[in-house]
Amino acid sequence: MERTTMERTAFIAATGTALPGEPIGNTELGAALGVSDEWIDVFVGTRTRYFGRDLVTGEIRDTLADLCAEAAAEALERSGLETGDIEFLVLATATPDRLLPTTAAQVADRLGLDHLPVYQLQAGCSGALQAVELGQKLLAAGAGAGLVVGGDVTHRHLDLRGRVARLPTQELVNYVLFGDGAGAAVLTAEPAGDAVAVRGLVHRMAGLGREPGQLIDWYGITDRDTPRPLLAEDYKAIEEHVPGMAVELLWDVLGEAGWQPEDVDHLLPPQLSRRMTERIAERLSLPDAHEVSCVTDTGNTGNALPFLQIDLLLQKMARGERAVVLAVESSKWIKTGLGLEKV
Amino acid sequence: MERTTMERTAFIAATGTALPGEPIGNTELGAALGVSDEWIDVFVGTRTRYFGRDLVTGEIRDTLADLCAEAAAEALERSGLETGDIEFLVLATATPDRLLPTTAAQVADRLGLDHLPVYQLQAGCSGALQAVELGQKLLAAGAGAGLVVGGDVTHRHLDLRGRVARLPTQELVNYVLFGDGAGAAVLTAEPAGDAVAVRGLVHRMAGLGREPGQLIDWYGITDRDTPRPLLAEDYKAIEEHVPGMAVELLWDVLGEAGWQPEDVDHLLPPQLSRRMTERIAERLSLPDAHEVSCVTDTGNTGNALPFLQIDLLLQKMARGERAVVLAVESSKWIKTGLGLEKV
Repeated sequence: MERTTMERTAFIAATGTALPGEPIGNTELGAALGVSDEWIDVFVGTRTRYFGRDLVTGEIRDTLADLCAEAAAEALERSGLETGDIEFLVLATATPDRLLPTTAAQVADRLGLDHLPVYQLQAGCSGALQAVELGQKLLAAGAGAGLVVGGDVTHRHLDLRGRVARLPTQELVNYVLFGDGAGAAVLTAEPAGDAVAVRGLVHRMAGLGREPGQLIDWYGITDRDTPRPLLAEDYKAIEEHVPGMAVELLWDVLGEAGWQPEDVDHLLPPQLSRRMTERIAERLSLPDAHEVSCVTDTGNTGNALPFLQIDLLLQKMARGERAVVLAVESSKWIKTGLGLEKV
Repeated sequence: MERTTMERTAFIAATGTALPGEPIGNTELGAALGVSDEWIDVFVGTRTRYFGRDLVTGEIRDTLADLCAEAAAEALERSGLETGDIEFLVLATATPDRLLPTTAAQVADRLGLDHLPVYQLQAGCSGALQAVELGQKLLAAGAGAGLVVGGDVTHRHLDLRGRVARLPTQELVNYVLFGDGAGAAVLTAEPAGDAVAVRGLVHRMAGLGREPGQLIDWYGITDRDTPRPLLAEDYKAIEEHVPGMAVELLWDVLGEAGWQPEDVDHLLPPQLSRRMTERIAERLSLPDAHEVSCVTDTGNTGNALPFLQIDLLLQKMARGERAVVLAVESSKWIKTGLGLEKV
């Protein structure tokens, strides 16, 4: 039996996004943390972010399922497709509401989806593009349309109730870097809606033998009293490795898509923080490409970020234009990227 | 552009398994829990299980990554394939060692895999077959071979240090029902190794509008002191729904594979507990099929179970024989199943 490679084209028919509540500015956040808004601006450059959990009371207004269902419903409505057209759902997150049932299954339930495969990917900054890549594979294997969703919340990992004035800088960074949000896209095997073709998909772990650059942990019954950080980044390693990995990844995507640097009209670079994005974008040497970033306004929303950027892109992308989307996950050094072309 | 359905055949080239330490019998477990071994036998029917965490000291001897890497390495070695032949890794679990980096990435690292896509599925009892189904899709989309892995550990959720004599029955059940373990398979697009063809894959969420039958939760910094159960099952709902869903699923798989009930030589039924498996197998009405179960010896090892059963099956499956594997996840009522045919 002969085997051939199926690299069928997937199309983004529409996107949707969800950011909880009102934007939280640096003055408000700085006051709660005991730092100045200038410090936040110089250190990470983020100006606003959104939280689904109330900073003062701890009340949870929006779960991850709430945000993901809102983004997915918006994408579905904008796509013009019906619930019955959706043949799979892939949801990527680092911060599931529970371990079981999955947030993916709860989102499917909210959307009225049933009798279809529902996958939840555990992932960090690479998760949104892992979901798109997996969606493309499911379309290549025969599906007609599906929903891909990504989101994260800081509910369990950031606690601003009272005790934060004593935080050391390495913990403080987490409070000014991250935000809550979700994004989604409807993928189709034939052009529909916005009809943006997905080209040159790359999804590669590239961390063999290297220490993780990011750690997110959880407590169980047995170890909730064992002190250890639940959220830790090796920022020195991230600053050292991510810009170079982003450059490699750009060339990987261009090579897979068969594009030249001058073919790229829009660049959607990795969004760890505004400061890191600036440093990465300088290295990417695509002088003609227009940058589409969101991290200054949304903070680092993890698995939501590339969907938030693609949503901004679709508002201005003209027929025939090309874009490159890049995401690097520092947990175990994962490169994900893709090209987009409005057909 | 015409689109056709690609239902290429995937083959299981080999399996591997890992169970930590020595089996823990009902006498030993019952003594630690303050219940009789007869109570355990009557209630769930499990005779032994394995734990990677020491019951008395709390010491963790085997992480999930340890068990999954051991099972995957065994499958790879038995398959005759090399590390360089593996084009993807899919790992399914309900109980990841950490949220990031993923256990899947850590297992890839242990096996020396790099520059390949690594997916971690969050799932319960349906996860092993979700991983096989996803692997088949990745082969259909062009990959030549990949590793699929499933495993779970009870490290964070079961605490036998001192406080268990006061446990109510609904919590006590968790301590006698579950066990730790991992299983894996090498999937190939062409027959290799054991050359067992995968037919009639089914993966469908079927829980629209229904309350979850199983919940597994986790604590973060913000809510570790908020009392709530981390592990809860609605056994009444499970007993009511799972046997009927298993019957539906059997017919789904037979229909997808184009088989008749009398074509089935081996039945690998859902493995919630020995008592539940007996009740389900009675309903499945395949009198000529030989049952392959492991739960009496291993306990409910979640995402590992179908791999442990398939590993037993491959030891006795003759050329031309057919088997059906069924797994039902009660979290949000997910049906997964497949047919196997030794070619």
